Amino acid sequence: MERRKKYLAGLLFIFLLLVSPCLTYADDGGEANVITQTVILDTLWVLITAFLVFWMNAGFACVEAGFCRAKNAVNILTKNFVVFGITLVCFWAVGFALMFGDGNPFIGLTGFLLSGPDNSPLMGDLYQGVYSSLNWTGVPLEAKFFFQVVFCGTAATIVSGAVAERIRFSAFLLFSVVISTIIYPIAGHWIWGGGWLSSFLGVGFKDFAGSTVVHSIGGWSALVGAWLLGPRLGKYGKKGEISPIPGHNLALATLGALILWLGWFGFNPGSTMSADPIKIAHVALTTAMAASTGIVISCLYAWWRLGKPDLTMIINGSLAGLVAITAPCDGVSVFGSFIIGGVAGFLVVESVLFFDRIKIDDPVGAVSVHLVNGIWGTLAVGLFDVEKGLFYGGGYKSLLVQFVGIISVGAFVLCVATVAWLIIRAVIGLRVDVNEEYLGLDKSEMGLEAYPEERVIPEYTIAQDA
Amino acid sequence: MERRKKYLAGLLFIFLLLVSPCLTYADDGGEANVITQTVILDTLWVLITAFLVFWMNAGFACVEAGFCRAKNAVNILTKNFVVFGITLVCFWAVGFALMFGDGNPFIGLTGFLLSGPDNSPLMGDLYQGVYSSLNWTGVPLEAKFFFQVVFCGTAATIVSGAVAERIRFSAFLLFSVVISTIIYPIAGHWIWGGGWLSSFLGVGFKDFAGSTVVHSIGGWSALVGAWLLGPRLGKYGKKGEISPIPGHNLALATLGALILWLGWFGFNPGSTMSADPIKIAHVALTTAMAASTGIVISCLYAWWRLGKPDLTMIINGSLAGLVAITAPCDGVSVFGSFIIGGVAGFLVVESVLFFDRIKIDDPVGAVSVHLVNGIWGTLAVGLFDVEKGLFYGGGYKSLLVQFVGIISVGAFVLCVATVAWLIIRAVIGLRVDVNEEYLGLDKSEMGLEAYPEERVIPEYTIAQDA
Amino acid sequence: MERRKKYLAGLLFIFLLLVSPCLTYADDGGEANVITQTVILDTLWVLITAFLVFWMNAGFACVEAGFCRAKNAVNILTKNFVVFGITLVCFWAVGFALMFGDGNPFIGLTGFLLSGPDNSPLMGDLYQGVYSSLNWTGVPLEAKFFFQVVFCGTAATIVSGAVAERIRFSAFLLFSVVISTIIYPIAGHWIWGGGWLSSFLGVGFKDFAGSTVVHSIGGWSALVGAWLLGPRLGKYGKKGEISPIPGHNLALATLGALILWLGWFGFNPGSTMSADPIKIAHVALTTAMAASTGIVISCLYAWWRLGKPDLTMIINGSLAGLVAITAPCDGVSVFGSFIIGGVAGFLVVESVLFFDRIKIDDPVGAVSVHLVNGIWGTLAVGLFDVEKGLFYGGGYKSLLVQFVGIISVGAFVLCVATVAWLIIRAVIGLRVDVNEEYLGLDKSEMGLEAYPEERVIPEYTIAQDA
Repeated sequence: MERRKKYLAGLLFIFLLLVSPCLTYADDGGEANVITQTVILDTLWVLITAFLVFWMNAGFACVEAGFCRAKNAVNILTKNFVVFGITLVCFWAVGFALMFGDGNPFIGLTGFLLSGPDNSPLMGDLYQGVYSSLNWTGVPLEAKFFFQVVFCGTAATIVSGAVAERIRFSAFLLFSVVISTIIYPIAGHWIWGGGWLSSFLGVGFKDFAGSTVVHSIGGWSALVGAWLLGPRLGKYGKKGEISPIPGHNLALATLGALILWLGWFGFNPGSTMSADPIKIAHVALTTAMAASTGIVISCLYAWWRLGKPDLTMIINGSLAGLVAITAPCDGVSVFGSFIIGGVAGFLVVESVLFFDRIKIDDPVGAVSVHLVNGIWGTLAVGLFDVEKGLFYGGGYKSLLVQFVGIISVGAFVLCVATVAWLIIRAVIGLRVDVNEEYLGLDKSEMGLEAYPEERVIPEYTIAQDA
Repeated sequence: MERRKKYLAGLLFIFLLLVSPCLTYADDGGEANVITQTVILDTLWVLITAFLVFWMNAGFACVEAGFCRAKNAVNILTKNFVVFGITLVCFWAVGFALMFGDGNPFIGLTGFLLSGPDNSPLMGDLYQGVYSSLNWTGVPLEAKFFFQVVFCGTAATIVSGAVAERIRFSAFLLFSVVISTIIYPIAGHWIWGGGWLSSFLGVGFKDFAGSTVVHSIGGWSALVGAWLLGPRLGKYGKKGEISPIPGHNLALATLGALILWLGWFGFNPGSTMSADPIKIAHVALTTAMAASTGIVISCLYAWWRLGKPDLTMIINGSLAGLVAITAPCDGVSVFGSFIIGGVAGFLVVESVLFFDRIKIDDPVGAVSVHLVNGIWGTLAVGLFDVEKGLFYGGGYKSLLVQFVGIISVGAFVLCVATVAWLIIRAVIGLRVDVNEEYLGLDKSEMGLEAYPEERVIPEYTIAQDA
Repeated sequence: MERRKKYLAGLLFIFLLLVSPCLTYADDGGEANVITQTVILDTLWVLITAFLVFWMNAGFACVEAGFCRAKNAVNILTKNFVVFGITLVCFWAVGFALMFGDGNPFIGLTGFLLSGPDNSPLMGDLYQGVYSSLNWTGVPLEAKFFFQVVFCGTAATIVSGAVAERIRFSAFLLFSVVISTIIYPIAGHWIWGGGWLSSFLGVGFKDFAGSTVVHSIGGWSALVGAWLLGPRLGKYGKKGEISPIPGHNLALATLGALILWLGWFGFNPGSTMSADPIKIAHVALTTAMAASTGIVISCLYAWWRLGKPDLTMIINGSLAGLVAITAPCDGVSVFGSFIIGGVAGFLVVESVLFFDRIKIDDPVGAVSVHLVNGIWGTLAVGLFDVEKGLFYGGGYKSLLVQFVGIISVGAFVLCVATVAWLIIRAVIGLRVDVNEEYLGLDKSEMGLEAYPEERVIPEYTIAQDA
């Protein structure tokens, strides 16, 4: 009986799915027939780099899973895998319209379901449609969307590392809906969607590829989540001592970092959204340089500060360099990127230690990588940009605008994310109960183990609270 | 003495290898000197997407190894690694000619060893050569071959998951020769090689990127193999109970799924074989959308049906969405892809449960992913294609043609694959003996362990037949 | 007090970092404004293939870590991760100028810090600048540098596998500085930088993508390192017996090999440094073919020679085929690549056995893959090149030149690498002490374990010297 009900529901479900498209429309008739060689070149570049950015999902999954314990690996992998699916649907239905649709300086209001009028790839004054804020790039609308949605997916994924090993699976999924539908699109509208920050004080807030838009937004959301959830059991002792909880697979984490780095060659050079050869070569180089000095400095600094060349710090050092160069990558010299990455490598080590001291438990260092260095990279525009940076004779105005942007985006995300997390907590609860956390989320929530055949050392799987 | 004989044989081998090229010819003199910017753009697109499709080999290796037990991991990895080497040689020597060479509606008969006359990249009526069925794409012959051989490799690789953990290594290698030399090329000729299905009943069978050509052909072959081999020891008990045999490494499997997804951005958008910006952007988006709704629906449906958000179902849900959108990806709306992927996410869960009920043991769910959803995707063309689909006013004709194509390809592959598997069984045997299976193929056949240092839980490595 | 000093030093460090760019210059003002469609196409190709070559870092990390024991995994991963950061900084500051800067036939002397005069992407006679040896490719200077630095990174990374499991971390880092600053650039100058070998005896030494420049240079350096370090504890017994020390994770190694293969589709086809469609399609195909026959022959030959289809031999067989086809890939027929890869698959098996017999302990087979097959591939140009190869009627002259190139590069690298290793040994020591080696480098040097939760079999972690 129970079984039959299930099947009836299943059949109803299929029927509804099959019938629904009859009620819909073809959504790609509006493209103008103006395909030039330049459109082709730009579209190839935008799509290929978008594929690389998509690939960052694999990087986040590997880094985060590797930095956590085996008993929670399935949970983290599932979160990272599902979040992109959710993001794509939400950003398609709502987020893209709020971010890039025409509206007011605070929010886009048109173009939901990617179905607004649009004559891309026509550009500039020739463009007619509701996504005016993207009229500077000459690629088809669906290429624009595809490139933007993989960025949104990145912001959503950043959260999962900081809240790992204790959040309810369903709570995380709900927050993913919120960040990709509301938080990222609205704050993003201010900067990339033609909103108030994009032209603030004449110079405009500059964030070339998203140190603030992607990384800080993800980072602020992660910070609130980690703070509201509280630390993992056994992380901070009663006498203030900090117990390291080592990640279960550093090979996986290292591979993940290299995947992320490869993805960043899509993230930054692709953000030109046009195949401008001198610019994309320059951005590729500044990106690689900042990651490299992030590695070298985090390696040497951690060696000096902690007495060993700590691989987890070096991995986060490379990512910190990459996050920091994301905003300024197109406007700084190679030497500028050398410095920006090096500072990031130093900052991330101190930041990881700092958040442990104030007892905000971030299992993978997501806040230190994405928020702290997202802020640093955004400020670095005001310092190192060869056109308007302080160190290149540009005065303080750009630095001020960057600062205002950081503060206002931070305030907005903090507020909305806090409200969202609190509502989720009130409705379904944020955190698994103590026994589930002891047992591991894989057994308690996911019903699967990542490595069912391995004998593991029980201290790591069961208890950390001496 | 024994040793000396070995060396003599080795030296003879080297000598023959070194001498043989003197007897051969340079095989790239026929290219016409007509390189335009369009040829360059199209070739860049075809090669880069082919690299991504090649990359799917890594995805299959990771998913299949992760879904099986550690004691068989080296075996599965080796199969997946070697199969592409075999495929490339076989498809170069014979398969490409049978599939794309001029011939009759049932088989190609010219252009073996990629050495037939050919004036690519000239196209259409200007094309003169023996690979007429590929005269619609304006890239050099070797780019056409390279793109097609990575597709053939995918079809061959699909088989390995379904027959895993019990097939003889040599039996699998022999079947790989058969599928890449005969099965895939001949059935493929009917559809992509200008054969009878390509123009059937006027409308023609439509399979844009290979839901049938690649995935169903691989899937039918896998089904026969899994059925002839019988289930793994301990999988199905005497009283009809089904024992789950969990995969040994879900981190590896998840990474593999993301690799496959990335590869699919080559598979589907690359199948344009030309850098048509609106089309490739659309295909990239429908591909991503179907994978996403495959994920979301398989997650929710498995949660409801099985009581947990099962990562293995979600992984297969994403792949099911990708397989299903492969045939219709260029001709459906984004909303169509939303539905197609969602249905695939539902189908794959039910299909995995169904094949377990009928006791066909498919360790990784390859048949459910590639065959069931290959069929669903092929039918979906007849339902959702905006030009000729039933739901868009195209009537039943296209749906009928799709159905005929599915049936006839299925019948052909079932017959030839069955004969091939039976001959292999008669000559060298299909299945390892019981002791070897208990011990694991890695120790018994491969002489290597994947993780020699790990202590594993013996229940998983030794016995499953309570 | 101690703490305060640390912070003061940290602050000083930040200050210096922040101030220093004021003393510098923008380094991208010299580009001429001559961007044509061809420049765009070529730059896209060069950058995308460079990204793939960068990706090989992940491949080396996975193969090398997988082939070593778990107790040294963090050490190997860290080496592979840090080495690219070091390489990029060194090659930017010094190496690129020594290799491609104008100078004399033995060394480049201009263009340090990538800041010499340069009007790229102008080509040939129109080019004015100090990097004349790269005036045959029409892409921006930063694209040229980016493509070349990822090659340098590959050469540096090759060393790490051969010296694994016993070298001091700091000794390896120092040698990385030497190889990327001095060894690779100077020998590379002879061949690719317009030096004496590039036009030797009229025909010129030919090494299209670097069988000698990248792989042999890395391989010679690795050989000296492995020889000076001596074998790992327990590898070779007192009575001459050889104890295999199996790698701890063959899934990781297999994935790494597929990553490397994907990367090679950047390495070889990208070395055109222009989007020439017929050539890049041909190179992609010969590259894939040599890897495939390397796989098939190493599989069959190892099966016959060792009694099992040894996955580690097959992995090295694929890499051997890829290394061997690197020099001749653009000038041989597909059939030529078929032979070259097959011979490589045979050579690598015999070579691995040979180096074990002479008791040079190379944990991952790096010397057999990169040096032996780098030599074979370089000679293969003289045999199989359709224009000047012996088997195609080109006579012995090209073969002679190739031979001279191999010998002279080998002699140079052997000398400089030996001196460098000996200086490093004298100053800080090459090898960890016995107890550290027993314990594993991860615990003794890195202060982290790769898999802290896993129970491992003590024989593999503690003692190998029965």
